[in-house]
Amino acid sequence: MKVVCAAERQRIHYPHSFLVNGAQQPNPEVPERIDRLLDAARVGGHEIREADDHGLAPIAAVHTPEYVHFLQHIYERWARIPGASAEVIPNIHPDRREASYPLSAVGQAGYHMADTACPIGPDSWEAIYWSASTAATAAGLVRDGASAAYALCRPPGHHAFADLAGGFCFVNNAAVAAGLLRDKHARVAIIDVDLHHGNGTQGIFYRRGDVFTLSIHADPARFYPFFWGHAHERGAGAGLGCNLNLPLPRGSADAAFLEALDHGLERVAAFAPGALVIALGLDAFEGDPLGGLAVSTEGFGQIGRRLARLGLPTAIVQEGGYLCAALGDNLIAFLAGFEAG
Amino acid sequence: MKVVCAAERQRIHYPHSFLVNGAQQPNPEVPERIDRLLDAARVGGHEIREADDHGLAPIAAVHTPEYVHFLQHIYERWARIPGASAEVIPNIHPDRREASYPLSAVGQAGYHMADTACPIGPDSWEAIYWSASTAATAAGLVRDGASAAYALCRPPGHHAFADLAGGFCFVNNAAVAAGLLRDKHARVAIIDVDLHHGNGTQGIFYRRGDVFTLSIHADPARFYPFFWGHAHERGAGAGLGCNLNLPLPRGSADAAFLEALDHGLERVAAFAPGALVIALGLDAFEGDPLGGLAVSTEGFGQIGRRLARLGLPTAIVQEGGYLCAALGDNLIAFLAGFEAG
Repeated sequence: MKVVCAAERQRIHYPHSFLVNGAQQPNPEVPERIDRLLDAARVGGHEIREADDHGLAPIAAVHTPEYVHFLQHIYERWARIPGASAEVIPNIHPDRREASYPLSAVGQAGYHMADTACPIGPDSWEAIYWSASTAATAAGLVRDGASAAYALCRPPGHHAFADLAGGFCFVNNAAVAAGLLRDKHARVAIIDVDLHHGNGTQGIFYRRGDVFTLSIHADPARFYPFFWGHAHERGAGAGLGCNLNLPLPRGSADAAFLEALDHGLERVAAFAPGALVIALGLDAFEGDPLGGLAVSTEGFGQIGRRLARLGLPTAIVQEGGYLCAALGDNLIAFLAGFEAG
Repeated sequence: MKVVCAAERQRIHYPHSFLVNGAQQPNPEVPERIDRLLDAARVGGHEIREADDHGLAPIAAVHTPEYVHFLQHIYERWARIPGASAEVIPNIHPDRREASYPLSAVGQAGYHMADTACPIGPDSWEAIYWSASTAATAAGLVRDGASAAYALCRPPGHHAFADLAGGFCFVNNAAVAAGLLRDKHARVAIIDVDLHHGNGTQGIFYRRGDVFTLSIHADPARFYPFFWGHAHERGAGAGLGCNLNLPLPRGSADAAFLEALDHGLERVAAFAPGALVIALGLDAFEGDPLGGLAVSTEGFGQIGRRLARLGLPTAIVQEGGYLCAALGDNLIAFLAGFEAG
């Protein structure tokens, strides 16, 4: 498997703040995640290559210019506010995207950040940009003929909407990858197996009929991201019927996950996509610190195997999965399962 | 002037948390505000009476049952979460009101709280309820024949939407008052002279043609509440043309404020309302700690005088205005101006 990374440039984003139930906790989206995953890719015998610089175009294809400009410049604007926090953290939010757009940094932070789990520091944009270029490089390899490629993206992306950061995510790397694959294929599917609903990905494609979005995740009725990922959300307009959410009860293990996946894969097949993006979170693992599901290492192998059987050109994009003893083993198991599928 | 209050019951809400530019500050919406205002009402020679218990009906008339239930029960639910903060503070927010509604306390907190300036503690609901009953009592007096009455409401209300708290506000007391006046009058106007845009009041009546909302405030392009209060927001549907925002540049003083008010009063007169609600913030004062405008004590007298000249039955509802030497004097000046008008 071709593995794409930009380790040094992705590592410099180091978020600290993370508000959980109103209380401050250490942010688990740490640079060390890259090392664990990269080491695993090496151990797994995969071919590692550096990301190419794809510029802003793949980002601009799925995000608004207001939002891209915000991500590029908000830290320097925030740092000029007397007494402001060391990281950009929002404190007021509009009731809808159509609300008026303010000029101030504080107002724009609330407009473009859904939660307090995506603080922006001095080096965040550089890492965000290279995470997107990593996804674009892997998707470009697939578009140009590779059967599959894995993008070791960090920060992750699937909670980022077209104009809204959230949940450790800023630019939606899976959407970036789907955008490149759309250059060649009329219909692309995104399958999100992260513990959390891929709400940003859903949001970006919710009214589009050319990209099918499937997400299997812990039931958001009592789990992040709460407002999105419910089974009744089916897409709208030209995208009606092109979004499928399969929420699972907390603690669900391999059998329940694989049963949902089999059902989802039938629906994906009925969409007849020409290419696939896998939003690969590894936090559905039974030992993950954010633990909401109980997928085993062997289970990740099974998930990879079944996804490969779609027989589609596939870009695999790293999403969540936090520091634990088995993080690397789970990546190895998934990629081995996919290659054996 | 009849002055209505429920001082002991409104005093027990004591919010502590207040995030400004990402940094924690003391919350300025303190119980002592009641004492300053009540002392001033006594000094001004006004007739002070205790609020009657108006029950939930006036609140339910302008807020959703989801939201009322949330306000009633969220603190006890929050307190059961291991490791949660001492007050209810939201950390994730939906992109729109139509997003799916979660079951969990954390999800509902983000759904029903727009910002981090409205923490909910153990006694908040009791104070919120009596603040609304204070507004209902004053409006009831006016509906039943009094020419005017002043409701000493605390916590304030004008940032609260039908299903959303924000900016120290939970139940929209001015909207509650307008609801009671609508029992008798086909058209009611609300004039908001608080430093901040009355975004919740605007939101509640945005699509209604029977309640005109006028707000004069510091320009929200760079001031709270940021996403609302811009001049182009005119109402929608049946309410198109029934909302008027007159944002002023930061630092505007009496002359600019009174000029805007004169313009606004012409528009209110063209609506031919049968009754008036004044959302009386005193934080447009030049010495207010949240200072964004520079209205003088004499200026508040002028504002009161001009509002009285509409010649309408009028409920005056207290909104913002924070601890400073002149808080009481400004109330006295406003009420004296109104009575002399």
